[in-house]
Amino acid sequence: ISNTCQFFSIIVYDEECFQGRHHEFTSECCNVMEFGFETVRSLRVESGAWVGYEHGNYQGHQFVLERGEYPQCDAFGGSNAYHIERMTSFRPISCANHRECRMTIYERENYLGRKGELSDDYPSLQAMGWCNNEVGSMRVQSGAFVCYQFPGYRGYQYIMECDRHCGEYKNFKEFGSHCQTPQIQSIRRIQQ
Amino acid sequence: ISNTCQFFSIIVYDEECFQGRHHEFTSECCNVMEFGFETVRSLRVESGAWVGYEHGNYQGHQFVLERGEYPQCDAFGGSNAYHIERMTSFRPISCANHRECRMTIYERENYLGRKGELSDDYPSLQAMGWCNNEVGSMRVQSGAFVCYQFPGYRGYQYIMECDRHCGEYKNFKEFGSHCQTPQIQSIRRIQQ
Repeated sequence: ISNTCQFFSIIVYDEECFQGRHHEFTSECCNVMEFGFETVRSLRVESGAWVGYEHGNYQGHQFVLERGEYPQCDAFGGSNAYHIERMTSFRPISCANHRECRMTIYERENYLGRKGELSDDYPSLQAMGWCNNEVGSMRVQSGAFVCYQFPGYRGYQYIMECDRHCGEYKNFKEFGSHCQTPQIQSIRRIQQ
Repeated sequence: ISNTCQFFSIIVYDEECFQGRHHEFTSECCNVMEFGFETVRSLRVESGAWVGYEHGNYQGHQFVLERGEYPQCDAFGGSNAYHIERMTSFRPISCANHRECRMTIYERENYLGRKGELSDDYPSLQAMGWCNNEVGSMRVQSGAFVCYQFPGYRGYQYIMECDRHCGEYKNFKEFGSHCQTPQIQSIRRIQQ
């Protein structure tokens, strides 16, 4: 049980269960339609951690993709709190390579209020002593994390990286292009 | 950031967003209809980790419930790989108290084939060196784990406890009453 990742590789298919047209990507893709895909219905992550986006140009709902098999949209689109039927763009999470993941969460926006230092996986922030179902702002010092709306890694996902936005997310509108609420109840590290 | 759990408490509501009739439970409930609920549309876990079931008598799809707020069915029903519209029974996961979680996974049923020793959270078993999208059988030596069909804690959930079935799950039909496939691609510990 060791980290075997040396590079990034994802294979996408336009039919479910790894059927139909397919293409392997080893770096970011800002619009899969440019490669002749109408949509992606299944995918296999061969190496590395990736983030997928509903729309082109890394817009819309986002979701983490780790090594393994996703035989239909339901398998990668996240929680049934929202229904993503498509993945149009995706990119590697390059800073997820860090052995050390560290972030600070703040009760209020602009890094104000009570704060918590995170360096592990937290399926329930409240069980870990965070007395709130929201996070107002956050800073990622190293590595990459995925934040979820509900406990147990469910609901909307927001990928937070130390090398994007300088790791600074000063209010919930910076959490993601679709983010309409500061509700965050579970957070975990992303590793390759 | 410490373990604050001393007992078990869950409050269920028959309307979304913590509205309507409600009831607090501090131990297992084999059928919420016996308490006058037609269904549960939102819930709040105040303390402890619980497992919820689609049907009465702890049957059907299962899903872990950790401390926090679940304002609608979508928030607790798991992944959109399946659509659970109800939670009819639920019980505390008492052995999730263990500080040490240990389990062994086996490639084939009846504890045969290659094996892996787990004591951490694994969002992708394949990234950790498990060269398969399936697990044939497993033994939980201590604590409790939740196994998921897809990477990143998505899809069907199976709660595995050291003090149920003697911690022994010798083939996929013992993973859960609804289990139709040995496909498991992520596993994590359950803690209070």
